[in-house]
Amino acid sequence: VLSVTVHASRCSINGIPLVRNITELPQDNYGRPGFLHTTLAGSLLHGMKEIEVWLQTFAPGTQTPIHRHSCEEVFVVLKGSGTLYIASNTHTKFPGKPLEFPIFTNSTFHVPVNDAHQILNTGEHEDLQVLVIISRPPVKVFMYADWYMPHTAAQLKFPYYWDEKCYENYETSENDEL
Amino acid sequence: VLSVTVHASRCSINGIPLVRNITELPQDNYGRPGFLHTTLAGSLLHGMKEIEVWLQTFAPGTQTPIHRHSCEEVFVVLKGSGTLYIASNTHTKFPGKPLEFPIFTNSTFHVPVNDAHQILNTGEHEDLQVLVIISRPPVKVFMYADWYMPHTAAQLKFPYYWDEKCYENYETSENDEL
Ligand SMILES: [Zn+2]
Ligand SMILES: [Zn+2]
Repeated sequence: VLSVTVHASRCSINGIPLVRNITELPQDNYGRPGFLHTTLAGSLLHGMKEIEVWLQTFAPGTQTPIHRHSCEEVFVVLKGSGTLYIASNTHTKFPGKPLEFPIFTNSTFHVPVNDAHQILNTGEHEDLQVLVIISRPPVKVFMYADWYMPHTAAQLKFPYYWDEKCYENYETSENDEL
Repeated sequence: VLSVTVHASRCSINGIPLVRNITELPQDNYGRPGFLHTTLAGSLLHGMKEIEVWLQTFAPGTQTPIHRHSCEEVFVVLKGSGTLYIASNTHTKFPGKPLEFPIFTNSTFHVPVNDAHQILNTGEHEDLQVLVIISRPPVKVFMYADWYMPHTAAQLKFPYYWDEKCYENYETSENDEL
């Protein structure tokens, strides 16, 4: 019964209070150990059409995939520290050697549209916690095995992890109505 | 010289580092006592096209104007507590008596497009600090003197306070080039 409740609240726009306690929202690691994602405001969850806001936590030694997307993305680092890798050479056939920037508590940065990037918690003890804001949800992500994989070989992941279950629900609902 | 430096960093997209220390970014009260605004990611400041992110602090007893805008807006309450007033009756001739919601540390909420709303720090001692995310910048705000002012009488404020100086700069630059 609990899983049904969580399931519903993760994907339904019905019955969700306008003001929500972040610490009570459903969170999941989506099969990625040391990772936690919470959708604070989402397209499938809250009917957002132009922006999504996520809270994500990375345990020491964990990271995002190397990826790019054609939306804008802003990060606000709430806790911890780590590294941003970003390759802005979108006119080449592959991302190539990225630039490296330290990120830290109370820092903010944005990722230009289509630049390949990766966030890592390079710390040894402390979680890295970030607010992530994207435009034009739901996000369509192209993932790279490494920085030298050709753009044409990057793998489209859509719906992305945290949207998958909700898309399944939508499809189920539609089928139910047939 | 200091004011020139602050001025430049508030409006220029040149020479701004990709990863920025929020505590070192320019902040201003824009003539509103007890209020502080910092643009973490902005259209005029950082070239954002689809989202803006602001950090705003409200001293006890201060509030936003009653206002609406045709963009999406998400709030994340980082510190303090207060009240959200929101009137969703967009099909009437004026906002009317708003709904009232308590907001608190670690809460999040979004304001539907064109709903009139107001945020207040109703606490007595603690600042209310919020992250504000809007779509389709720069924001065009319609302001209401009270909840019963007709929509047709609401005053358009554009460019909004924190964008005014930057628009002036842009105009000055253009004039300089003539
Ligand atoms: Zn990304
Ligand atoms: Zn607003």
